[in-house]
Amino acid sequence: MTIKPLTDRVLIQAEKAEETTKSGIVLTSAAQEKPQISRVIAVGPGGMVDGKEVVMQLKAGDRVITGKYTGTEVKIDGEEYTIVRQSDVLAVVE
Amino acid sequence: MTIKPLTDRVLIQAEKAEETTKSGIVLTSAAQEKPQISRVIAVGPGGMVDGKEVVMQLKAGDRVITGKYTGTEVKIDGEEYTIVRQSDVLAVVE
Amino acid sequence: MTIKPLTDRVLIQAEKAEETTKSGIVLTSAAQEKPQISRVIAVGPGGMVDGKEVVMQLKAGDRVITGKYTGTEVKIDGEEYTIVRQSDVLAVVE
Amino acid sequence: MTIKPLTDRVLIQAEKAEETTKSGIVLTSAAQEKPQISRVIAVGPGGMVDGKEVVMQLKAGDRVITGKYTGTEVKIDGEEYTIVRQSDVLAVVE
Amino acid sequence: MTIKPLTDRVLIQAEKAEETTKSGIVLTSAAQEKPQISRVIAVGPGGMVDGKEVVMQLKAGDRVITGKYTGTEVKIDGEEYTIVRQSDVLAVVE
Amino acid sequence: MTIKPLTDRVLIQAEKAEETTKSGIVLTSAAQEKPQISRVIAVGPGGMVDGKEVVMQLKAGDRVITGKYTGTEVKIDGEEYTIVRQSDVLAVVE
Amino acid sequence: MTIKPLTDRVLIQAEKAEETTKSGIVLTSAAQEKPQISRVIAVGPGGMVDGKEVVMQLKAGDRVITGKYTGTEVKIDGEEYTIVRQSDVLAVVE
Repeated sequence: MTIKPLTDRVLIQAEKAEETTKSGIVLTSAAQEKPQISRVIAVGPGGMVDGKEVVMQLKAGDRVITGKYTGTEVKIDGEEYTIVRQSDVLAVVE
Repeated sequence: MTIKPLTDRVLIQAEKAEETTKSGIVLTSAAQEKPQISRVIAVGPGGMVDGKEVVMQLKAGDRVITGKYTGTEVKIDGEEYTIVRQSDVLAVVE
Repeated sequence: MTIKPLTDRVLIQAEKAEETTKSGIVLTSAAQEKPQISRVIAVGPGGMVDGKEVVMQLKAGDRVITGKYTGTEVKIDGEEYTIVRQSDVLAVVE
Repeated sequence: MTIKPLTDRVLIQAEKAEETTKSGIVLTSAAQEKPQISRVIAVGPGGMVDGKEVVMQLKAGDRVITGKYTGTEVKIDGEEYTIVRQSDVLAVVE
Repeated sequence: MTIKPLTDRVLIQAEKAEETTKSGIVLTSAAQEKPQISRVIAVGPGGMVDGKEVVMQLKAGDRVITGKYTGTEVKIDGEEYTIVRQSDVLAVVE
Repeated sequence: MTIKPLTDRVLIQAEKAEETTKSGIVLTSAAQEKPQISRVIAVGPGGMVDGKEVVMQLKAGDRVITGKYTGTEVKIDGEEYTIVRQSDVLAVVE
Repeated sequence: MTIKPLTDRVLIQAEKAEETTKSGIVLTSAAQEKPQISRVIAVGPGGMVDGKEVVMQLKAGDRVITGKYTGTEVKIDGEEYTIVRQSDVLAVVE
């Protein structure tokens, strides 16, 4: 089963807390907050969004920072994902 | 009886919970939430929407993910449907 | 007496509940909600609306679905009508 | 004394309840609501409004329907009037 | 001391209640509301406002009607004035 | 140390109450309100702001009137300043 | 590990209170407020943001003033940072 985001949307998955710690990054994480670092799973094709051309700059595998309360959560095969607009992604971590 | 969505609107119907489970997808579903995976029943013709040209990219039969509280619910012949704008559809499932 | 909607507005009248049932359509209708299927009584001429050209696609006699809380209600000769913008009409029923 | 509305504004006066009844129109009128049928007393010149050209389509003497809570009320020589934008006028009654 | 409004702003002063009465106009005036008829004291130069060209149509001495809660109040030499945008002026009284 | 406002921003400092009184201007000043007359300390370079060209019309030394709750307060070397957009300045006092 | 802000975003870090005091600047700082002077750590590439071209004018090392509640906080290697849009930066301190 494949999830294909539409237009400027991006499917991301929050990194597990352990992975986050190993990489040396610790995010303020009240129990009900989503971690802020996620891995990009799939990106939409971009194109016209609300009358403006959007070029996708993210790709699958990127590690990104998003706002804690951004996007729509979905659960697929027992894993939790989030779908956000590319413009809601704040930064890429390298 | 046929429902023809106008402009950029799409008529969708939430998949039954059983169908959803068989396909291996489980959505967080508090009792009062709509399931997030729906099947497209009919699509509008697109065209000018609020002064911007919209091209329809969805077609009847597509399985789509939408936000849980998106759109307007209607009940036809005892079945519940939802009418959403194409821009409120987050992703296609294949 | 004739009601002529201005610009992109449409005068509609909710179908009676009986008529609705005969046609096989049942809408969720809490007591304080308007039925969602209405008949178009008159349409405005379209034209420039907020700086954008609007072409009317509805005509008198069309049966349409609108949101439950959309538009302005008026009472004429003892009958209740609603005036909505064409963009608030979700679908046509045929 | 003359009131000259500016730009796309229209000076209207609610019809007296008696007049309304004689014409066969009855509006739902909770005590605190304004009647919805008014007579146009004066119209502004139109022109550029928020960067968009507005052409006035109403004229003094027209009978119009507006939303119940639309516009700004003024009291002149003991009579109550309302100033609305032309775009807030829903329909003309003929 | 001179107050020069910027861009599309207008300095107005509410007419005294006495003056208002003599002219035959009575405004609904709860204690905490500003009178709605004011005299224009000074007008800004107009020009580009939020990317749109604004031409000033009011001049010092005009008597105008504004919404009751519009603009910013200032007190100069013991007199109260209000600064409004020209677009917040509803009508001119002649 | 120099504070250089960006784009269309202006650094202003509220006049002391004494200075204000001497000049004959008295502003309604509840204890928690900022005085409305300020002196311009520094102005940004203008330029493109939200896609629109802004030309700065204020200069250091100007005395200006602003809304009471406009802008962001900063404290520098024990003095309080406010940073506002030029479009939030209502008038110049000469 | 490197944080690369996207589009018009800027990664900033609040100056320590001691550093702030030494430089002679004191900001009103209720316990729950962020200091208002920060150092720029990294800037995005600019480009099209919501259909408008944004040119970055800040660079790493700049000391900037931002609103107290602006942006998204992230914690990296035990240090707290904030990601803001360039348009949310009010002024540069030199």
